[in-house]
Amino acid sequence: MQENFKVTPWEVSGSVDYDKLMKDFGIGQMSSFAEKLPKNILFSRGVVYGQRDFARIAEAIEKKKNFVMMTGLMPSGKFHLGHKIVAEQIIFYQSLGAKIYLAVADVEAYNARNPDLAGLRKVAIEEYLLNYIALGLKPKNCDFYFQSSRSRDGEKANAYYSLASLCARHTTFNEVQAIYGEISPGKLQAALLQVSDMLHPQLKEFEGSVPVVVPVGFDQDPHIRLARDISQRIKIQNFIQLSSTYHKFIVGLNGGKMSSSDSTSYIALTDSPEAAAEKIRKHAFSGGRVSVEEHRRLGGNPDVDVSFLYLKTLFEPDEKKLKIIYEDYKSGKLLTGELKQILIEKLTKFLREHQRKREQARKLVGKFLK
Amino acid sequence: MQENFKVTPWEVSGSVDYDKLMKDFGIGQMSSFAEKLPKNILFSRGVVYGQRDFARIAEAIEKKKNFVMMTGLMPSGKFHLGHKIVAEQIIFYQSLGAKIYLAVADVEAYNARNPDLAGLRKVAIEEYLLNYIALGLKPKNCDFYFQSSRSRDGEKANAYYSLASLCARHTTFNEVQAIYGEISPGKLQAALLQVSDMLHPQLKEFEGSVPVVVPVGFDQDPHIRLARDISQRIKIQNFIQLSSTYHKFIVGLNGGKMSSSDSTSYIALTDSPEAAAEKIRKHAFSGGRVSVEEHRRLGGNPDVDVSFLYLKTLFEPDEKKLKIIYEDYKSGKLLTGELKQILIEKLTKFLREHQRKREQARKLVGKFLK
Repeated sequence: MQENFKVTPWEVSGSVDYDKLMKDFGIGQMSSFAEKLPKNILFSRGVVYGQRDFARIAEAIEKKKNFVMMTGLMPSGKFHLGHKIVAEQIIFYQSLGAKIYLAVADVEAYNARNPDLAGLRKVAIEEYLLNYIALGLKPKNCDFYFQSSRSRDGEKANAYYSLASLCARHTTFNEVQAIYGEISPGKLQAALLQVSDMLHPQLKEFEGSVPVVVPVGFDQDPHIRLARDISQRIKIQNFIQLSSTYHKFIVGLNGGKMSSSDSTSYIALTDSPEAAAEKIRKHAFSGGRVSVEEHRRLGGNPDVDVSFLYLKTLFEPDEKKLKIIYEDYKSGKLLTGELKQILIEKLTKFLREHQRKREQARKLVGKFLK
Repeated sequence: MQENFKVTPWEVSGSVDYDKLMKDFGIGQMSSFAEKLPKNILFSRGVVYGQRDFARIAEAIEKKKNFVMMTGLMPSGKFHLGHKIVAEQIIFYQSLGAKIYLAVADVEAYNARNPDLAGLRKVAIEEYLLNYIALGLKPKNCDFYFQSSRSRDGEKANAYYSLASLCARHTTFNEVQAIYGEISPGKLQAALLQVSDMLHPQLKEFEGSVPVVVPVGFDQDPHIRLARDISQRIKIQNFIQLSSTYHKFIVGLNGGKMSSSDSTSYIALTDSPEAAAEKIRKHAFSGGRVSVEEHRRLGGNPDVDVSFLYLKTLFEPDEKKLKIIYEDYKSGKLLTGELKQILIEKLTKFLREHQRKREQARKLVGKFLK
């Protein structure tokens, strides 16, 4: 097999062979667990595709034992469909009884690019928290925090930050450099806080000894491995090994990467329905043929068609309907314009509803920040 | 002038030329300020010899404005006469109205050598805090804390640790390496916490904008410079530039370095008076002559005599008495054994009294840890 793709925390390129990636890094398949989870298309349709040590999370869900789902957000750019894939997972785990730990990586952002903590805080709330709430995140069983301000409870704050500091003893520059590429004091600091983000839920000041699952994209596995490795070197606390899941990258509108820096590559959840429809008509990569006549004759390719992929991943939960769309497009019965229109209608309905909920969400923000 | 001495944070060797050191690094003389301070032999006799930006501390003292004195302790080894020189300064500043910030560098110790936080805590209290209290440190206006556990007030803890994390943006590996020699993630972390130790008293969660003085040995100036430099690069807070004072190294019993790893080089404040007397008789470097007859004829050299230097630095506050001892030893009237006996009597009295107070101090420990 040719290695024509690259997945590292600082570069994703080429057509990703997920099975090869998982084999290389010892990441397991998610499918056997996905079957037993309550219905969720991200799991049933293979978007969440890989896992490490998910068995103990599956067991906690099954036996209704305590567990934590931890993730972080980088307060920059627009909240788009790629972020929705993470948000849906957070909300899914919360519905399954998980305590949610949601870290705003504002210290990381300050150290990496933007030394304006107040501005970062605003983006975290306006772009991220409001969208999470509108998508269904509940304040109960959710610990939403800023890396710069962990807790109003001093014992908790001490424990979280000290864990980051003490982890420094248990790593080396080489190890961190292998994950982050070029490192600096700021990046090292961010790496240590991120390790503490993932490990601190198990401290006695927080949940005590509970399994923790961190859902990430495949490119983030080196960060998971660092936290897993460090956790087993610390002798003053017995950490249960971290669990993690790996989701596939959502394709950008143009068929390439979905990138916050290119607004024609994504649909933001605050895009107006009209603007979103226009983006799909204009930019959505199509698996259709060059002419209607040829399309009718040879059929389209739904497997590379971005509109179909968005329906599959996010907007058409009904298996039968999705199957009909797939087959009709493949046979040539459904034209590209018609397929796009199906997505546009679903998306318009979603965005209208979502943006209304997002405004209502403002009154809940205080409950998350208390 | 020959450079036959070396003073860096990781090495002090040779006979230190303090004036050259101060000229090289831009450290000012302390003498003009010392004259205006209430009487304290460490200042009046030139033990505290150098300063940076002490004018604003002198002004705060004179005008009875708020100021902070910050210092740290490394919880290892025995509390000896070298530590007493720092303790005397802490207590002096407290008597002049300073708020005292006293950091136990337990995270630094964990990362550098000893991953036993509970053990480090015990040493900090038994060896350091009890001796400080016995020497006169009061719980009022004293913030005694562990780096691993800054405050029970979450806002304070968040502010202290975040400052350390954010400082990472404002330094480089090269800068830290120049101070610490070989660095590791653990040492970098310790350096950042130390910078926060020195700067955080000025945060709004603590004292707000107040002058802060950090008394150190000359070898510690690179740490001061790092904190001073970083403080001026941070834009989200206006830090008043740090003040610092520099004390000379206390000579070891044998005339060389006082080292925690060589018990014949120091008197610990928990040494029994008998053991201390024995150490002085046996090990104290003498400025006397090879024979009584020669000593009587040529006189001794009090300026290199360790017993005399200890009397001057720590145990004989009376100027007239000290002068008589100096002259009698120089003239040969006072023999080495007699000089040692003067110190032994002073020291015996001090240790008896101190050790009694140290036991009484136990009941005050709780007030410092609250």
